[in-house]
Amino acid sequence: MSTTQRRRSDGERRRRAILEEAARLATIDGLGSLSLSRLAGAVGMSKSGLFAHFGSKEELQLATIDAATDVFERHVIEPAAGETGLARLRALVEAFFQYVETDVFPGGCFFAAAVTELSMQPGAVRDRLVAFVERWLGELESAVREAQAEGTLDPDEDPAQLAFEIEAALFFGNTGFVVSRASDAIERARRTIDRRLAAITLEP
Amino acid sequence: MSTTQRRRSDGERRRRAILEEAARLATIDGLGSLSLSRLAGAVGMSKSGLFAHFGSKEELQLATIDAATDVFERHVIEPAAGETGLARLRALVEAFFQYVETDVFPGGCFFAAAVTELSMQPGAVRDRLVAFVERWLGELESAVREAQAEGTLDPDEDPAQLAFEIEAALFFGNTGFVVSRASDAIERARRTIDRRLAAITLEP
Repeated sequence: MSTTQRRRSDGERRRRAILEEAARLATIDGLGSLSLSRLAGAVGMSKSGLFAHFGSKEELQLATIDAATDVFERHVIEPAAGETGLARLRALVEAFFQYVETDVFPGGCFFAAAVTELSMQPGAVRDRLVAFVERWLGELESAVREAQAEGTLDPDEDPAQLAFEIEAALFFGNTGFVVSRASDAIERARRTIDRRLAAITLEP
Repeated sequence: MSTTQRRRSDGERRRRAILEEAARLATIDGLGSLSLSRLAGAVGMSKSGLFAHFGSKEELQLATIDAATDVFERHVIEPAAGETGLARLRALVEAFFQYVETDVFPGGCFFAAAVTELSMQPGAVRDRLVAFVERWLGELESAVREAQAEGTLDPDEDPAQLAFEIEAALFFGNTGFVVSRASDAIERARRTIDRRLAAITLEP
C-alpha cells in the first residue's frame, strides 16, 4: 500500500468514526439538534475542524444519514442476504429486532427517530430519510413477493399492505423498547408478526 | 359573572391559547426545541412575558403536554365515550384517524412526535409523555376487555397484545400520513385494524 493510499484510508476511517458517533448522538439528542460542539468534544476535534471536514451542518447531517444507512445495511440487510422469500422476510425482521435490542444505536433505530423528528422540516435531510424508509419498506415488500412466488405465502395477500403491517410492528416495538429499556415491546412486536405470517403461510 | 371571575376566565383562555399554539409548534419543531422566541412571536407576546407566565422552559413544556392531552381527549376520547366494548374500540380508532387527518396538529399526533423525540431525555417531560402513552394503551385495552365481557370479541385474545397491535397501526399510520400528506398510510392502518378485529369478532 502506498503512503497516499494509507493516508486516504486513515482519513476514511477517521471520517467514518466521526459520522458513526454523530449517528449515535442523533438517536439521543436528535439529528436536527445535532450539536457540533458536543460532537466535536466526543471525537476530540475542534468545531472548526468539523466544519473543515463537512462544510455545513446540512452536509454533516446528510453524511450522518449515509453512515447510519451503512450501519443498518450491515446489521439488518446483510444478515438476511443469504436467504430468499419467507426465510428472508423472517431474517430481516429478526435482524431488525437484534439491531434494536443490542443497542447498535443508544436510542433505538436511527431512522425511526430521525424521520419522526424531521418529518415536518422540508429539505434534503428529510428527503434522504424518507427515501431510506421507502427503500426499507420496498425491501420487506420484495421479500413478501419472493415468498409468494416460491409458494410459501398466500398469493392473495397485498405485498405492500403486509409490508406496512410488519413495519408498523417493528416501528412501535422499537419505540416501546427505547421508552422502557425492556424487551416486552419487542416480544409483542415479534408475536404480532409471527402470528400474522403463520396465518398466511402455505404448507410446503 | 363578577369582574374577578371574568378576568380569571380571560386569563385562562389566554393561557390555553398560548399552550395550544405551543403544542402546534411542537409538532413541527419538536417539543424539546420549542423556541420561546418563536412562540412569543406567534402569540404576540414578549419572551419575558412568556417566562412570567410559565416560569421555566420545563414548566412550559409540561403545561403544553397537559394542553395537548385536553385536545386529545376532546378529539379522540370523548367522541367514543357514548359507546361501549367493540363499538367504543372502533370509535376510538376512527376518532384517532380523524384527529390525524384533519390536522388538529399540523405535524400529526402530538404525542407520537414528542415521545419519539424525547424518549432518550430523562426527566419530568419525558415521564409525563410516557404516562400519557400508557394511559392511551390502557384505554384501548379496557375497550378490548369490555368487548370480551359483552361477548363481541374472542375472549382468548390477550387484551394488552391486541392494544399493542392496534396502537402500532395507528402510530405508523400517523407517521406515514405526516411524511406523505396523503391518506394511503391511514387507509393501510385502517385496513390492518379492520381485518384484525373482523377475524376475532364473534357473531351476535
